[in-house]
This record gives sequence, structure tokens and C-alpha cells, in this order.
Amino acid sequence: MTKKSGRHSPEKMWGGRFSEATASSVEEFTASVHFDARLYKQDIAGSRAHARMLARQKLISEAECTAILDGLDEIQREIEAGTFRFRTELEDVHMNIEKALSERIGAAGARLHTGRSRNDQVALDLRLYLRDEGRAIIALITALQKTIVRSARTHLGVIMPGYTHLQRAQPVLLSHHLLAYYEMLGRDRGRMEDCLTRLNVLPLGTAAMAGTGLPIDRNFVAQELDFPAITANSMDTSGDRDFAVEFLSCCALLQIHLSRLAEELVLWSSKEFNFVEIADRYCTGSSIMPQKKNPDIAELLRGKSGRVTGNLMALLMILKGLPLTYNRDLQEDKEPVFDSVDTVKSCLAITDELLNHTTFNRDAMQQATRGGFMTATDLADYLVLKRVPFRKAHAIVGAIVAHAQKRGVELTDLSLEELRSFSEKIDKDVHRVLSVEGSVNSRISDGGTAPAAVEKALAVAEQQLGIGR
Amino acid sequence: MTKKSGRHSPEKMWGGRFSEATASSVEEFTASVHFDARLYKQDIAGSRAHARMLARQKLISEAECTAILDGLDEIQREIEAGTFRFRTELEDVHMNIEKALSERIGAAGARLHTGRSRNDQVALDLRLYLRDEGRAIIALITALQKTIVRSARTHLGVIMPGYTHLQRAQPVLLSHHLLAYYEMLGRDRGRMEDCLTRLNVLPLGTAAMAGTGLPIDRNFVAQELDFPAITANSMDTSGDRDFAVEFLSCCALLQIHLSRLAEELVLWSSKEFNFVEIADRYCTGSSIMPQKKNPDIAELLRGKSGRVTGNLMALLMILKGLPLTYNRDLQEDKEPVFDSVDTVKSCLAITDELLNHTTFNRDAMQQATRGGFMTATDLADYLVLKRVPFRKAHAIVGAIVAHAQKRGVELTDLSLEELRSFSEKIDKDVHRVLSVEGSVNSRISDGGTAPAAVEKALAVAEQQLGIGR
Amino acid sequence: MTKKSGRHSPEKMWGGRFSEATASSVEEFTASVHFDARLYKQDIAGSRAHARMLARQKLISEAECTAILDGLDEIQREIEAGTFRFRTELEDVHMNIEKALSERIGAAGARLHTGRSRNDQVALDLRLYLRDEGRAIIALITALQKTIVRSARTHLGVIMPGYTHLQRAQPVLLSHHLLAYYEMLGRDRGRMEDCLTRLNVLPLGTAAMAGTGLPIDRNFVAQELDFPAITANSMDTSGDRDFAVEFLSCCALLQIHLSRLAEELVLWSSKEFNFVEIADRYCTGSSIMPQKKNPDIAELLRGKSGRVTGNLMALLMILKGLPLTYNRDLQEDKEPVFDSVDTVKSCLAITDELLNHTTFNRDAMQQATRGGFMTATDLADYLVLKRVPFRKAHAIVGAIVAHAQKRGVELTDLSLEELRSFSEKIDKDVHRVLSVEGSVNSRISDGGTAPAAVEKALAVAEQQLGIGR
Amino acid sequence: MTKKSGRHSPEKMWGGRFSEATASSVEEFTASVHFDARLYKQDIAGSRAHARMLARQKLISEAECTAILDGLDEIQREIEAGTFRFRTELEDVHMNIEKALSERIGAAGARLHTGRSRNDQVALDLRLYLRDEGRAIIALITALQKTIVRSARTHLGVIMPGYTHLQRAQPVLLSHHLLAYYEMLGRDRGRMEDCLTRLNVLPLGTAAMAGTGLPIDRNFVAQELDFPAITANSMDTSGDRDFAVEFLSCCALLQIHLSRLAEELVLWSSKEFNFVEIADRYCTGSSIMPQKKNPDIAELLRGKSGRVTGNLMALLMILKGLPLTYNRDLQEDKEPVFDSVDTVKSCLAITDELLNHTTFNRDAMQQATRGGFMTATDLADYLVLKRVPFRKAHAIVGAIVAHAQKRGVELTDLSLEELRSFSEKIDKDVHRVLSVEGSVNSRISDGGTAPAAVEKALAVAEQQLGIGR
Repeated sequence: MTKKSGRHSPEKMWGGRFSEATASSVEEFTASVHFDARLYKQDIAGSRAHARMLARQKLISEAECTAILDGLDEIQREIEAGTFRFRTELEDVHMNIEKALSERIGAAGARLHTGRSRNDQVALDLRLYLRDEGRAIIALITALQKTIVRSARTHLGVIMPGYTHLQRAQPVLLSHHLLAYYEMLGRDRGRMEDCLTRLNVLPLGTAAMAGTGLPIDRNFVAQELDFPAITANSMDTSGDRDFAVEFLSCCALLQIHLSRLAEELVLWSSKEFNFVEIADRYCTGSSIMPQKKNPDIAELLRGKSGRVTGNLMALLMILKGLPLTYNRDLQEDKEPVFDSVDTVKSCLAITDELLNHTTFNRDAMQQATRGGFMTATDLADYLVLKRVPFRKAHAIVGAIVAHAQKRGVELTDLSLEELRSFSEKIDKDVHRVLSVEGSVNSRISDGGTAPAAVEKALAVAEQQLGIGR
Repeated sequence: MTKKSGRHSPEKMWGGRFSEATASSVEEFTASVHFDARLYKQDIAGSRAHARMLARQKLISEAECTAILDGLDEIQREIEAGTFRFRTELEDVHMNIEKALSERIGAAGARLHTGRSRNDQVALDLRLYLRDEGRAIIALITALQKTIVRSARTHLGVIMPGYTHLQRAQPVLLSHHLLAYYEMLGRDRGRMEDCLTRLNVLPLGTAAMAGTGLPIDRNFVAQELDFPAITANSMDTSGDRDFAVEFLSCCALLQIHLSRLAEELVLWSSKEFNFVEIADRYCTGSSIMPQKKNPDIAELLRGKSGRVTGNLMALLMILKGLPLTYNRDLQEDKEPVFDSVDTVKSCLAITDELLNHTTFNRDAMQQATRGGFMTATDLADYLVLKRVPFRKAHAIVGAIVAHAQKRGVELTDLSLEELRSFSEKIDKDVHRVLSVEGSVNSRISDGGTAPAAVEKALAVAEQQLGIGR
Repeated sequence: MTKKSGRHSPEKMWGGRFSEATASSVEEFTASVHFDARLYKQDIAGSRAHARMLARQKLISEAECTAILDGLDEIQREIEAGTFRFRTELEDVHMNIEKALSERIGAAGARLHTGRSRNDQVALDLRLYLRDEGRAIIALITALQKTIVRSARTHLGVIMPGYTHLQRAQPVLLSHHLLAYYEMLGRDRGRMEDCLTRLNVLPLGTAAMAGTGLPIDRNFVAQELDFPAITANSMDTSGDRDFAVEFLSCCALLQIHLSRLAEELVLWSSKEFNFVEIADRYCTGSSIMPQKKNPDIAELLRGKSGRVTGNLMALLMILKGLPLTYNRDLQEDKEPVFDSVDTVKSCLAITDELLNHTTFNRDAMQQATRGGFMTATDLADYLVLKRVPFRKAHAIVGAIVAHAQKRGVELTDLSLEELRSFSEKIDKDVHRVLSVEGSVNSRISDGGTAPAAVEKALAVAEQQLGIGR
Repeated sequence: MTKKSGRHSPEKMWGGRFSEATASSVEEFTASVHFDARLYKQDIAGSRAHARMLARQKLISEAECTAILDGLDEIQREIEAGTFRFRTELEDVHMNIEKALSERIGAAGARLHTGRSRNDQVALDLRLYLRDEGRAIIALITALQKTIVRSARTHLGVIMPGYTHLQRAQPVLLSHHLLAYYEMLGRDRGRMEDCLTRLNVLPLGTAAMAGTGLPIDRNFVAQELDFPAITANSMDTSGDRDFAVEFLSCCALLQIHLSRLAEELVLWSSKEFNFVEIADRYCTGSSIMPQKKNPDIAELLRGKSGRVTGNLMALLMILKGLPLTYNRDLQEDKEPVFDSVDTVKSCLAITDELLNHTTFNRDAMQQATRGGFMTATDLADYLVLKRVPFRKAHAIVGAIVAHAQKRGVELTDLSLEELRSFSEKIDKDVHRVLSVEGSVNSRISDGGTAPAAVEKALAVAEQQLGIGR
């Protein structure tokens, strides 16, 4: 495992005081460049702003600044062209870029790290990265909300069973059901926006962790990088990963929401429910069973809640009990963050596509509302309006249901006489309230499933999303 | 386990359609009253508002309303006097109270549940509870922040080592170190406030989960209970525990912060650090070792991060893959929520006390800044200001440190000649930058540890907290 | 919160060196007696064995030993009669019992703690407790396995759809499906047995954590308490909670298994599947919807996987990064352990009852095997036996399925001519393999669903469980 | 994201019944080949055994078998030479290899999948992989144990403070402290061995999940692949990931142990403790502070407990509530498993190296035993042997400690007269028990820290590990 290393640690950019070269096993174990290289864009943007500030503050010359900016441009081009070689022995993206810069432009490059530390850079890069990705996630959430709202608009009028405990409860509009996810996603967006507000603060400028005596200008850097504020305490900033925890928390709950939708798609595409048909393009088959068509995407959406939650647990555990300020444990922050970002983004995108390639079986849904005494509550409410106390009404209807079940019929099949044998308050106007359509139409309370209420909710959603009709 | 039960399920308030009594093992297994009884105040407040609304909407008479309100008052008094008997077979706090009400006031009580469901009540009670507790937590956070800021003010001028990787890094002000926790707690408060804003929405009025046809007025209830808004979709509302997840996320990160402070108190009260002395009243001893005085509180604060994180894990897992709308799994939400609330509140309160009974050993802290070449970065910055590129300066100082270490002396012990043998840029003004005090005083960058910068941060904090001086 | 305390810490059993009384807020915060009192039986058993050893080693006299044993007996009787008062200011179950003993028997009581520490006692009590509870859980697992096996025996012959991806895959025997849970539970039992073997080691005798110079005899104590071995290293023993982690891991996976069974019961009791009918006694209703009958137990079984997993998370986090040996963080071990033990035990018991009160709808299950081309694999295998390469056979049958689906018929509805138009290898013997019964009967591979294979598996299970027939 | 795809799903090996090509976004989202390709060796080994069985059972000809085995050899060589191209659109390692085989050897390749499914293969490959890796981990554990035992042997005689609550408690041998980790690792090995025993069961042969009617011979395959047994129930087997959960549980606790050792190394390499010196080769420096030398490896070891625990949480959550049998969620099992395997292996290896490159500062350790009244318990035990009841002895010594602390001296500095003023039982032989060496030497109880006891423990460990002396 420990291969012979000819290098001497003095070659490391921090190696002045070291008398031995780093063991290559240590280089491998501690290196982060294989995953943090993806922060190159943020790292270079941060270095550019830092260099401009150094020049403005006369800590480097204008010529040096230009050399640095040009050098960084070249490095960025090479990275994007795939010709830049990241080296494990240079540990991380920061040292790889700084070293390459120095090799190209000499002494000017060696001045870039003036008044800053790698911890500084990590904190900056990660915030810039999460700011970008958080905004991308918000855009994907919004896109998915639009798909949901459009689908709700398209399917307005389709009736299906609403469930509690996976038992048919009351008939609802499919659109009402769909809009429940619009609400969940709206909260996800709100949480992510709050998270971005809190993380959008410049950390750069803590130097080692105590601040610096060099005349840096943090506010100028903040302006350059579009941060509305700078952090207030260098020691806090140096060891702070709160923003990453909050980000992972947002991702976890978002993925839980997707897992709920996914569960419903799995259920609904079962032969037993048969409420949806997912397009062939969005299903896969079995290597052994020729007839199978499986809702794999939905299952993966559901399963991926595990990793996103696991990532959150990982980071909380990493932070537990760490004394101030920076500890190397914090390097473990990036992989869970990257994994959650990738997962959530791909899941949002594929869910959007999936919904666009899923057909609702209106007839099967409608058919499913026929059984199960789903208008029993309507009958109880009917009695309430006739001044029967609700608890009594509930008991009467419970008895009617038991009676109907024994007879093997639905409530609509009971004659007025039968019904009246349970309560004389029941009159011939009762049959209106026993129909599925009557039931749905009646639920006009705010947030209810009546077409009028749903139409209103749709209008609000469409306005929020800027969807013209 | 299954004891004979003479009761018949029809006695249950939902038992109309049931032909058998519930098994007593089932009653025990499904009951929640042993933990949700603590929501009695919220439950009664919700019922009061609901009753007033029902009366206003003519769904009950004014007389019935008065009977209900009086009955609820009486029940609340009994609960608070400890004379109310909660019964397991009535399942939960909601049914216990409703049943008691009916027994006292008859038919009027049987009308209270008009247009609402237990799920409705649970959602309402939990939001009211978390709104109260969230505010209580914010108050405790603020109190702890005040203690921290006062301590930072008191100790202004005390110098100690700042650490990275638990290695002495640079001298800092103790006040600067303390204020790092002020910042963390400030973010905790911000997150909790955002959480409360999002949860402060009235859920009541979803009825079974589809809304109702009875002419309820959700906005009136919202006003009564001081909710600025009502939820938009009854199906979403019925199965929504996002607010609880967000609340638990806030608690988890807050407890992580306390665990970090706790770790430092444990370290600092060790013989090896000897930076603090915790008052005898705030320590405990050993049953076997007569000399022991242990920082138990700090250790428990650290360890309790486990349960608070575990609670978050639990709730996320509970929600995973649940189809709409309400599922009984959601009953499992309350115990983790109660436990995290209790834990976080007691931890905040005891941390506050603990800090007020902890003495900082100024001398030991000061002494600890003497070793470890903690002003090496200052020397490098000195060279930078003399136009040595930072990387070169870093290497020169690294070599000087290696030299001093070999000689077994500190940087301040090196003669000018020795120093100049590493770089001719070093001049006799160097000794100013090598002193611990000079180092601290120099770090005047925003957020830095220089007394001037810390004084400024203190002033901001004192203003934010409304602390006069 | 901090009420005035007149007590002086010297009254604490460890208070000799303390100059101040413990703050009452500290007593409340650090006390564990409100939850560890449930270890009283283990604590007393441990003290009894310890006392007998002390007497045997002449560290106490026989008379003192007798006084101690009698005193402990009396205390145990009082605890069990509910007349013993546990006091928070005495911190934990250990000190409460020791103090009570001293108050009753004087100096002899003050000799009991010779050569042991509270940490010693905690470690012992928890191991004894988990040994008992682990065995109880094993008994409950076995009981549930018996119920499953009996049900599988009773329902032998009932055919239902087997699912992958919640899509109908192949017809299987209900008994085969049930026995899958027999297997899972068998592994749970195996894991728990391994856990008990590893934890069944006497920890007592580490004294403070370094061992003792007093002439104790750990092996004698081990024998008294039925431990086959003693721990090997006092420092390891003092801070070791591995056995609790392993126990919680066993519980978590066991609960996951119950959550899978529960999910199936929820699905199967839906109107859409309609595979089972849970007895009224094992369901509950809705406070608002008179017709509802909900599978609450199954939902709670599923949801409780959250808390059991959260408890495991909590303990792992508590242990992370703790230096040797005992740290007070470890006090946080007990509540998650107690909660998981209680949860898993009650869940196993209620699952057993639930299965005994659930009726399988044979007709609905059988009916469900008719649709969905579930014998397509049989047709492919038929072709394989006629020397068609499997991949080709799979493709042929895929095309046949597509054809049947377009025609809206099942495979059995296709004429021989139609079938032969896809492959000439198909002959009139094909219809045998297309029938559901033929399919099930054919799967005689080891572990397969053919009645013969299941009968064999049943026989093995019955023998393992000692079920006579 | 969705690029145009000219392919038609019928090209998929399962595509017969599909009328549309899979969307390329779906291919990307559902593919696993980018991570499961690392199972190629296990997959090929499984296919080889399967092919041999098919030939033996006359399901394929000998010539076909030979063609398959040769084809698989060639593919394996190409993969190992890096010339094999894995294709995302072929989803996973299984289909990639089968497709490549078919392209090379034609019809024989198309016969390989006879009587098995991909789920079969996944289950087999993962078990084979974990069996290999579990054994590798056991070897690494053993190697680390050897290093620990050798170090304990080397340092026999070095005295250091033993800690509870991070407070100096009693003097112990460094070797005793080190051997605590030998014990922890021993339990880790035991758990992993139990896990491997339970997972070492052949899953192959469940076919789709119901078994097969083709005359396969599972026991032959088991023998070929060195499995001592075959799984008993095809439906259980198809959806079983218990072995992976158990494996991840073992990894989590193992990593927790490493985090504890790591915490100690971090503490001990601090200036304040100064108990160890880690070799330069095993430390890294700071990009900004020239004097820094950081224990990065230990910090990473500690931090990586987060990811390993997160992986366990992820898998438990994935499994929660999954109905039988296979669900695509299970594909999410592999990444956490791979990550934990990689992490634990690299951590064990680097810990071993690290300990071999860490020097213990005997003098600093010894020096640290001088302060802190660490022999107070010895004094109490001394009194016990003079028939003072332990509780009284504890109180007397507590008072002596308080007295010494007030005088600012250690126990050894107190005169006999001073000591006797607290208890007349104290005699001139007391000074022997107050010395650190006397204290250590006295603790001869089993598992104690006396040199004789530690020597005995060492001998046992050396024998268990087969270390000659």
C-alpha cells in the first residue's frame, strides 16, 4: 500500500517545516481532489475576486493581477477542455490550481495566497456552489410544479377516491390530489430560498481563522462575488458548515415528498389500482419475465430518499462535538453534499418527465369511487344540517353502513324507507348527497375538493407560477 | 396480553359500523393518550375556537356554544388540577376531552365534532404546540446569547490560543472565541423563525381530508387562534408533517452547536488544558474515586446530540413513501417531537447556567499562547508587506520554525542575525510582529480578532440583543 | 429553574471534596433515575452477587453480607410493592438503592461499594437487562414464526399473485409468501442469539476503570450471575456500549421486517387488493367518516421502524469520537435501548395477534392470478426445453404478450394457431404450462413455490419450531 | 437532458413486449453500470458456475458450455485490461456482460440466462463481493490488532493517566490502554465473522422469484461457488438485503471504534497533552500557517464515522415498508455498501500505518500522572483494608483531597500527621499506596492494569494472533 515516494514534503506548498516527504498512502487517504475538482469554477471565480482585491489594496501590482487573471483563464479553459491534469499529491482543487498558476506565471502566482487560507477557499467555494445548485434546484422545483398544475388543469373534473389509511375515504378530484404536491413543493422551495438567503454571505477573509493584519477588503470581494453581506466572526466562519446541513435538510424533505408521489405512482400503476399507465419509454422490463413492465423510475425515486437522508445524518454526525475552528473532519462534507445535489436534481427532472408521460385512467378512477360507502360522511353532515348532533349522526350512519354491508349493497342502493328506519330525519332529498358527484361538488370549504374550490386554488397556483391560460 | 374486554366497539365514538369490541391489546398498542395528553391546552383552545365558529355559522346554537365553552373550561381546570382521568380506551387526548364534554353537557357536546376530524385536531394541536415551543426556544437562545455576549464583554482583553485541528494556530481573544457561538446561535434563531413562519398556518377545516360541505369559516378560526393564514389544500394538510420535520432539523443543528461548545468545555476543564474551572455546584463526583470532579453537564450536552439527531432520522423515515393523505404512521410523530423540544429547552437553559458558573483561567490561557510558534503567520505577512511573494514567505518561515524547533526555542528567542540568515528582508522591526499581543492587535480585518474588531462585533451584538452597557 | 437548595454536596455519596451543594437544576438535568429505575432488579441481583463475593473474599463479614442481602430483599419488595421512593437528587437507581440500604443497615451498607464503581454497575445492569430482554424477544420471534408456519400450513393450496415491483409476476402459493417471513424472522433470531452470546460476559470488577488492588474474585461473581466469561480489559469494559449498539442493530432490522409485512397487510386490506379481512377487533374507525375501518395496527408497525432506526442512529452518534474510558455521554444509552426493547416486543406480540385475526380472501387472491400474463415465463421456459435459446424465447413470448394485450385477452385465450405464428416450436401441450395451477405446480426447484417444495419447507420449519402436526 | 434515441426497446434484452424505445433520460436515471461494473468478477464467476450447472443438467450442451466459459474468460481479460466498453443503455454489469457474450458466441450466449433472473445475479454477486470484502476486512482488523499488541508489548512499563470524563482518574499502563482497542477490534471481527456466516448462502436459483420448473441444480452451483448452503425460500431471497444491512452495521461500529482511537490521537498530539508525536510523513501542514503540523489522518478517521453511519441509515430506510419481493429500490443498496467497504478498508490500513509511525512521549505521559490526586482511590482502598467502610473511606479521602487542593500540594506531599488528622487508621505504610507506581502495580484484579495482569492479557492476545515473541 505504501509505495516508495521520492518526493520531499518541502515540495508541498506547506512543507517548509517538514523534514520528511508525505507518505503516498497519506496523500491518497487525505486527498480530496478526486471529488472537489468539481468546484474548479467556484475556486477560480473566488481567486479572481481575491486577486482584484489584492491589486486594489496594493498588495499585488496591477501587472501581477493581470497575470493571475490571465493564468486562471487559461487554467479554466484547460479544465473545461479536459486537458488539465489534477494531481493527487497536490491534495485538493485549490492547491492544484495555485500550483499550476505558479508554474505558468511565476512569482505573481506565489502572491495569490496572500491573506487567505485553504479553509477560506473551501468555505467560499462550497457556498458559491450551493448558491448555484440551490437556485438550480429551485428552478427544477418550479418546473415540476408547473407540470403538476398543468396536469391538474387538464384533468379538472376527473373524480377518484381520496384515501386515508389507504382505505377509500371520500371522493375527490384528481386535480385536488395533484395540487397537494404543488403545496409540498412550494414549501420545499420556500425552505430552499431561506437556506440560500442564510448561506449567501461571504466567508473569505478569515485568513488562518483569526483574521489578518494585511489590509484586505472583504466588502469589495463580497461585491465582486455578489454576496450581500460578509460573515461576522472569523473563528465561527472557519469551522461553519451550518449552511451545508441546512441545505441537506432541505434536500431530505424534498426527496421524502418525491418518495410519497413515487409510492402513489407505484400503487396506481399496479394491476389492482390501475389508475395510471406509464408510457413504455418510462418503464423497463424483466430479464426473465417477458410480460413485465415495471415502474422502475418511481421505485428509484422512492428508494433514493435513503441516500439523501443518509447524507444528512452523515454530516450531522461529522459535526458533532468538533471544537473550534477548522478540523479536517470537515473535508467529509463535500461528498454527501454533492451526492444529495445530484440526486435531488436528477430526481426532480425525471419526475417532471415521468408525469408528462403518465396517462390517468379516468374510467378506472371513477369506477373506484363507486364502492366503499364513500359518501357516508355526507349523509352524516346531511343529518347535522337537520339538527342531529354530529356524534349521533355518525352513529346512525355507522349503523346504516353496517346494514348495507350486510346486504352487500352501496348506500345509493338503499331505499328511502330503509334509510328512514335508522332516522326519521332522512328525507327524499337524501339521494342527492349520496351520489359521488354531489359529494365532491358540495365540499366548497376553503381548500376543499369541490370543483369551485379547486378552480380557485388552480388560479392562485397559475398566477404564482406565471402560467398563462 | 389480551385481557377479556366487556366493552363493545359501538361504545367507541367511531364504532357504529363495528360488530366487535376492540381488543384491549389493540387499545394499548394504538393509544396515544399517554403522550399526547400534554397537548390538552392546545386541543381545548382549538375546540373553543371551533365552537365559536360553529355558533357564528349557526351550526350550533349560542346556548350550545356556551355550554361547550364552559364544559371545556371545567375540563381544563380539572386537567391542570390533576383530577381529570385520561382513559387509554378512548385512545387520544381528543377523544378523551370530547367524551368528557359529552358526559357533562350532553347533546351540545355531541355537536362539537361537526365539520372536523381528529386528524384535523392533531394537525392543529401540534402546530399550536410547536408555535409555543418554538417561541420558547427562541427566547432561550436569546438568553444564552446574552450570557455569551456579557461574558465576552467581561473578558475582553484575555488572550488564548486559537486552534485549528486542535493544534495551536494563532493567538486570539477569548471574547472572539465566545462570539463565534453567538453567531451560531443567531443562525439557529433565524432558522427557527423561518420554521415558525412556515408552520403558522391554520390546518383546521380539512374535515375528513376533502373539505366539507358544511358552511364552516376557516378564516374566522384562524383569526381566533392568531394564524395569519390558512392551508390551501385539504389533502396536503391532512398528511403534512413538514413543519415537524423542519422543526426537528432546527433542533438537531442547534444541539450540534451545543455539542461543540460542550466539547470545548470538556477539553478546557481537563487538567491538560486547564482553561476553565466549573463551579462545584455544576459538577458531579465519582462513586469510587474521591478526588474526581467531572464536567458531566457538558458531556450530557454533547451526548444529547445523539437523541435529537435520532429523532429527526425517525420522523424522516416515518414519512418515507407514505401515500396521501393521513396514515396512522403519523401518530409516531409526537414522541420524537416532544423529546427534541424537551431536550433542546433543558440543554439551552443549563448551558446558560453553566456558562454563568464557569471561571476562565486567564493566566493558563495566556500562558498557553507562549509556545507553538503561533506568530509564524505574522512573520510571513511581515515578509509579504516587504514584497516577498506569500508562498516564498511561507517557505522561509517554515524553515525558520524548523530551525527554532531544532534549537528548542520560540520565534521570539531567535536573534535578528539568525532570522536574517533566512531572509535579508527581516529587520529589527520584526520583533513587534512576533509578540502574541502584537499579533492579536494586528488582526483588524472585518470579523478578525483584534480588540478593535471584537469591540465592534460586541457592539453590534449588544445592540441586536438590546443589552445596555 | 434553580430553586434554592439547602443541601450540601457532602451529602452526596461522592461529595467529600466538594465545597458547594449541587445546583438543583443540575440534579434534574443529570439525573437518570426516572428512567434507569427500571433496572432495579438487575441492580439488586448484581449487588447480591457482589456482596456474596466480598464476604467470600473476607472483604466484609458474613454478618455484614447477610445484612446486605436482607436489606436488598426488603428494598426489592418495596419497589415491587410501589412503596419505595426514588429520589432525583440521588441521581440514579444505583445510588438510590445503596443509600436506602445504608439508611437501613448502617455501616454494612457503606461497605457494599467496596471495589466497584457506578460505571461498573451500569455496565452490569444493562447487560443483565438486555440478556433478559433479548431472550424475551427471541421467544416472541419464535411465537410469531409459529403463527406464520401454522397459517402457511392451514392455507396450503391457496394461490395468489407473486409480485415484483408491485406488478404481478408469477403465481405463487400464499404459504410460500408467508414462509418468506419465517425466513426473515429466523435470521433475526440468529442475529439476536449472536448478540446475546457476545454480550453475555461479566463486566463487573473494572472498579474505577483500572481494576482494583482489593482481592476481588470476578469469576465467582460471573458464576453467580450465570455469565460464562468475564471481560478482559478494564478500560475497554468501562466505556464499552458495543453490545447495546449491536442489540439496537438487531432491533432495527427486525422492525424493518415487520414494516414490510405491515405494508403488505395495508395493501392487502385495501379495497383494491382485497386479499385480507382484518377482524373488527383489530381495526379502528374514523371520528368523522362513519364507514371507515382502518388497518391502524399495520400502519403503526410500519411507522415504528422510524423510532427503532432513530434509536440506533442516536447511540452510534453518542459513541462517536469518545475517548476512553467512561464519559457521561454514555448515560444517554438507556432511553433508546428501553424504547427499542419496548417497541420491538409490543410489535412482535401484536403482529402475532393480528395474523391470528386476519382472514385471507382465497377467492380474491385466486381471481387476481387470472390477469396479467403471469405464466409468460412458463411459456418461455417451455420453449427453452424445446431448445430455443432463452433470450430468443423471451423475445418470442414478449411479442406474444404484446399481441394478446392488443387483442385484450390473456395468454390462455390465444389459439394454438395464433401461438404458433410466433414460434413453430409451440405445440398443443402448451396449454398445460399456461395455466396458473400448472405454473405453480411446476416450480419444484429448491426453495420454489411448487406445493411439493413448499411442503418440504414447511416440514423443515415445523421441525425447527417443534410444531407437531 | 432527453437526447433523441434511435434505438427501439425491442433491442433491450427484455424489450419484446415494449412498443417504444426507452427514453435516454430513463436509461441514465436507472442505469447502475457506472457503479456495479465493479462486480464484474463476481458476476462472471457466478455465470461460469451457472453455465456448468446448465450443461450438467443438459439444459445446454457441453459445446455451448465451453463456448460460454471461453467467452466469459475473454470478457474478463478485456475488462481487466481496460479495453471492455461498458454501455449505459445496457443498464447494468449483468446485461453488459451477457450482451457482449452473445455478440461473441451467438446462440450459446443467448442460452446462459436460462432459469435465472438479473435479481438472482445481483443477489449472488453482492454476496460473493461481501464475502470477499468481509474476509479482507477481517484480515485488516487482525493486522491492526497485531500492531496494537506489538506496540503494547514494546511499551510495557510506560505509565500514563487513565481518564474518565477526560479527567485524570487513575494511573494506568499505556499497554493496558492500547489493549482496550485490541478488545474492541476483536468484537468487530467476531461480528463480521457472524455476518459472513449468515450471508454465505447461495441465493441463485430463485429465477424470477418463484423458483423454476427447469431442472436446475442449486446445490451443484453452491458447491462450485463454495457456499455451504442454499437459501430456503425464493420469495424471501429475491428481496433480501439483510446481509447487506448486517454488514453495514458491522462497518458502522468498527468505524466508531476507529473514531474513538482517532479522537485520542488528536487529543494526544495536541500541545496540551503532548503524549504522542506523529511522524512528519503522516501529518500535513497549513497553506497559510508555516508552523502547523496537523493530525489530519486521525481527524479524517474520526469524521468518516459520519459516512459509514449514514450508509447504514440509508439502507435501512430503503428497505422500510417494501412489499415482497424484488423492488427496484433495492438497486440503491450498492453504493452505500461500496462506500462503506472502501472507507473501512482504507481506514483500517491507514490506522495501522499511523500507529506504526507514532511515537509515545513516555516522559510527558509519566509526568502527567504526577498531578490530580490520582491515587486517591488507593488511599480509600487502603482504609477499606483497615476495615473502614468504603463509603466512609471515600468521604475521608474526599476531605483529604480538598485539604491538599487548598494547600496546593499533592497527596504524596502530605505528612503522616496531616493524613492522620483525617483518620487514625492511616499509618506510615500509607506512602507506598500513594505512589503512582505502587498504584499501578497493585491493580492485579482480572482485566486490571497491573503489569502482571497486562502481561497475562498480552500473552493471550499474542497467542490468539499467532504472534511469536
